[in-house]
Amino acid sequence: MARSPLAPPYFPDLPPIDGVRLASAAAGVRYPDRKDVMLAELTPGTAVAGVFTRSATRSAAVRDCQAKIGATGEAGAAILVNSGNSNAFTGRAGDASVARLTEAVGSLLDLPAARVFTASTGVIGEPLPDERIAAVLPQLGATLSPDGLPGAAEAIMTTDTYPKGASARIAVDGRPVQIAGIAKGSGMIAPDMATMLVYIFTDALIAQPALQALTHAQCDLTFNCITVDSDTSTSDTLMVAATGRSGADVTDSLAFNEALYGVMLDLAHQVVRDGEGASKFVEVRVTGAATDHDAHLVARAIADSPLVKTAIAGEDPNWGRIVMAVGKSGADADRDRLSIRFGDILVAEQGWVAPSYTEAEGAAYMTSQDLVITVDLGLAGGMATMWTCDLTHGYIDINADYRS
Amino acid sequence: MARSPLAPPYFPDLPPIDGVRLASAAAGVRYPDRKDVMLAELTPGTAVAGVFTRSATRSAAVRDCQAKIGATGEAGAAILVNSGNSNAFTGRAGDASVARLTEAVGSLLDLPAARVFTASTGVIGEPLPDERIAAVLPQLGATLSPDGLPGAAEAIMTTDTYPKGASARIAVDGRPVQIAGIAKGSGMIAPDMATMLVYIFTDALIAQPALQALTHAQCDLTFNCITVDSDTSTSDTLMVAATGRSGADVTDSLAFNEALYGVMLDLAHQVVRDGEGASKFVEVRVTGAATDHDAHLVARAIADSPLVKTAIAGEDPNWGRIVMAVGKSGADADRDRLSIRFGDILVAEQGWVAPSYTEAEGAAYMTSQDLVITVDLGLAGGMATMWTCDLTHGYIDINADYRS
Repeated sequence: MARSPLAPPYFPDLPPIDGVRLASAAAGVRYPDRKDVMLAELTPGTAVAGVFTRSATRSAAVRDCQAKIGATGEAGAAILVNSGNSNAFTGRAGDASVARLTEAVGSLLDLPAARVFTASTGVIGEPLPDERIAAVLPQLGATLSPDGLPGAAEAIMTTDTYPKGASARIAVDGRPVQIAGIAKGSGMIAPDMATMLVYIFTDALIAQPALQALTHAQCDLTFNCITVDSDTSTSDTLMVAATGRSGADVTDSLAFNEALYGVMLDLAHQVVRDGEGASKFVEVRVTGAATDHDAHLVARAIADSPLVKTAIAGEDPNWGRIVMAVGKSGADADRDRLSIRFGDILVAEQGWVAPSYTEAEGAAYMTSQDLVITVDLGLAGGMATMWTCDLTHGYIDINADYRS
Repeated sequence: MARSPLAPPYFPDLPPIDGVRLASAAAGVRYPDRKDVMLAELTPGTAVAGVFTRSATRSAAVRDCQAKIGATGEAGAAILVNSGNSNAFTGRAGDASVARLTEAVGSLLDLPAARVFTASTGVIGEPLPDERIAAVLPQLGATLSPDGLPGAAEAIMTTDTYPKGASARIAVDGRPVQIAGIAKGSGMIAPDMATMLVYIFTDALIAQPALQALTHAQCDLTFNCITVDSDTSTSDTLMVAATGRSGADVTDSLAFNEALYGVMLDLAHQVVRDGEGASKFVEVRVTGAATDHDAHLVARAIADSPLVKTAIAGEDPNWGRIVMAVGKSGADADRDRLSIRFGDILVAEQGWVAPSYTEAEGAAYMTSQDLVITVDLGLAGGMATMWTCDLTHGYIDINADYRS
C-alpha cells in the first residue's frame, strides 16, 4: 500500500520515557515477515488509564481491559498488542486466548495477570493463533528497551500506510516531563471512540483516578472528533500510562493538560490523514449553534456525509450538499441565518449564495490538500470542530477487495 | 448514464386513473432537450395526502406543500413538478418562485393557489428559472390526458437511470379500484423520508384525514426503510391523491391498504435498484431484537455501513463487518446469542462462526445480484427489514464529478 499523500514527511523523534521499556517482534499472526506484536513493560507505581470502544460486539481483549482498568497500587504493568487478528467475535475461545496470553506475560515479567493489558487489531471472527504470540514472548522479554517505541508503532499497524507517533516535552515545577505516544488506525473510524489503538506514555506523576478523568476528557476533544467512514471498531483502545519517574506531580497542571491534548490531537489528525483512500484533510468548524451538542450534530452530519465527502474528492465546491447535511443533522437551523465559508471565502449567507461569491473562487480553494469548512448557524454560541477526509475510489479499492 | 443493472426489464403498463389527467413538457430548466416538467390535474373532491422531508433546510416548495396539505372540501387540485433545480436554499427568491408558479397554475386550471402543490428536484442553491416553467404551462394545459403517467415518470427524473412506475387493481365491495404511482430517486436517499419524489393516484373514495393517516403509516414501512447513502434530501415528497371516482369507499379496507402498501414497496425497491452505482440489491432482515426500535437500529447500521456495502460490492462474505455494524448500532446485543445468515446459509452463531459454514459457500452466495442478510439477536421478538444497495466505484464516479 502506497504511503498516504497526506502523511507527515517523517516519523517524529520520540524520546524514551523513564520507566517504560518496549519491544516488538514478528510472530506471523497473519502477516508474514513483518513486526506484528509489541510488548510494553511499565515500572511499578505506574498509573494506567484507558478509554475503550462502546461496541456491543467488542473484542475479548477490550472486555478484559475494561475489567482491569482503574486499579491503583504499587504493582507494575504490561501491555501486549498484536495486529493481523482482532480476536473479536471469536466466542469463548477468544476469552481463553486472552487468559493464556495475560498469564504468559505475567510469568515472563513477574506480574499478576490482572496487571497485563492486551489488545488485538485486524480481521474479525477468526480464531487468534495465540500460540504464535506466546512463542515470541521470550524474544520480546529479552529485547525490551527504552528506545522501543518506533518499532512498536510499526508492529501495531494493519491497513495503515505509515506509523504514527507524537511527543511533547514540558516543565512542571521546574522538572522536565516527557510524553510520547503511538497510534494505529485508518478505516472503521467513527466519532464515537475513533481511536483504533493509541498508547501514550509519560514520566509524569499523577494518580490513576485523575489520569483516567483527564484521558476521558481529552479523548472527547480529539479522538471522538474524527471520522473516516462512520464505522466503529470492535477493538478501539486508548491507554495512557504515567510512570511518575520524573517526580513532577502534574495533577491539575494546565501545562500537562495542554501537552497531553496536543499529543492526542496530533495522533488523531494522523489517523485521519491515513484514512483509507484519503486525498484531502478536512476540518469542519461549526459555530453559532443553539448548543454545543447541536454544533456537534451538524459537524458530524457534514463530516460523515458521503455526498459531501465525494464532492470534496472531486474538488467540487458543492455547498448545496453542506446545506443538505445541516438539514438532516437534527439540530436547530434557520435557512435565513445560516452562513457557509470555504476557508476565508464567504459562500452562502442569508439563505442563499453570497453576492460576493464566485464559483471560480470556490473551485480554486477546493484544489488545496487541507481544507476548512465553516458553518455558522447564527442562533447562539454552540460550537464544535471535527476532522475528516474525502471519500475516493481508493476507499472502495481497499474495502471491496476480497477480505482486505 | 447507463441503465442500472438492477433495473426492472420494462416500465409497467400503468392504467389511467379516473379523475386524473397529466401532461409533461421540456422547459429547459437545466437539462436541454428532455422532459423536465409534469403537471397533474385532479378532479374536484379529490383527497390529497402528503408526507414530506423533515430536513431543516427543506425546499421552498416543500414548505409551501406542508402549509397546504390536509385541506378537505370540494375543490380540485393540481401538482406541478420540475426536475433539474430543487429550489432549495434559494432564500426568499425561492418562496417567490413558488408563489408565482402556484398562481399561474391556478389561473390555468381555474383553481385557488391553495390547491396547487409543487415540487422541485435537482441542484441545490441555484435560483429556479420559474419563467421557463411558466412558459410551458399553456402547452401542459392543452395536452393534459388520462394517459400522461409514463411521460410524467420521465419528466421527474434527475440522476435516475430509468423511470419508475407501479400499479395495482383490486375490488372493494364489488367495485374495481385502481392505484398507479410514479417515483424518482437514486442518490441522497436515507431511511428518514427516503422518497425523493413519489406521486400515487387512485380512484378510491376516502376522506383526506384517513388517507393522510394511511399514507404516513405505509411510508414508515416502505420509503422510510430504504437507504442508499444515508443522506437526506431537501425535497423529499410523497403524495397520494384519491379522486373517489370509482365510488368504492376504501376506508378501513384491508385490500386497499395492502394494495397501496404493495405499490409503495414496489416503488421504494425501484428507487434502491437505481441507487447511484448500485450493482447489488440487499434486503437486511433483523429478528430477535429486544424491541422493534432496536431491530430498526441494527438494520439501519448494517444497511448504512460503508464497510458492509463495499464488502458486498466486492462479493466478500465478510460477516465480521456485520458483527461490527451490530456492535455500533446502539441496540442491545449479546455476542453469544447473535446469529447471522446469508440467504439460507447459517454463517455465525453462539458468538462465533458456525461449524457448518464454509467460506466457499459464503463467497458463492455473494455473487448473486439480490442478497438477503438476516441477523437474529436472540433476545426477544423485535423485528425490522431494510433495503439497500452496495457501495461501488460507480457511486464515487457519479458524485465526485464536478457538480453532477
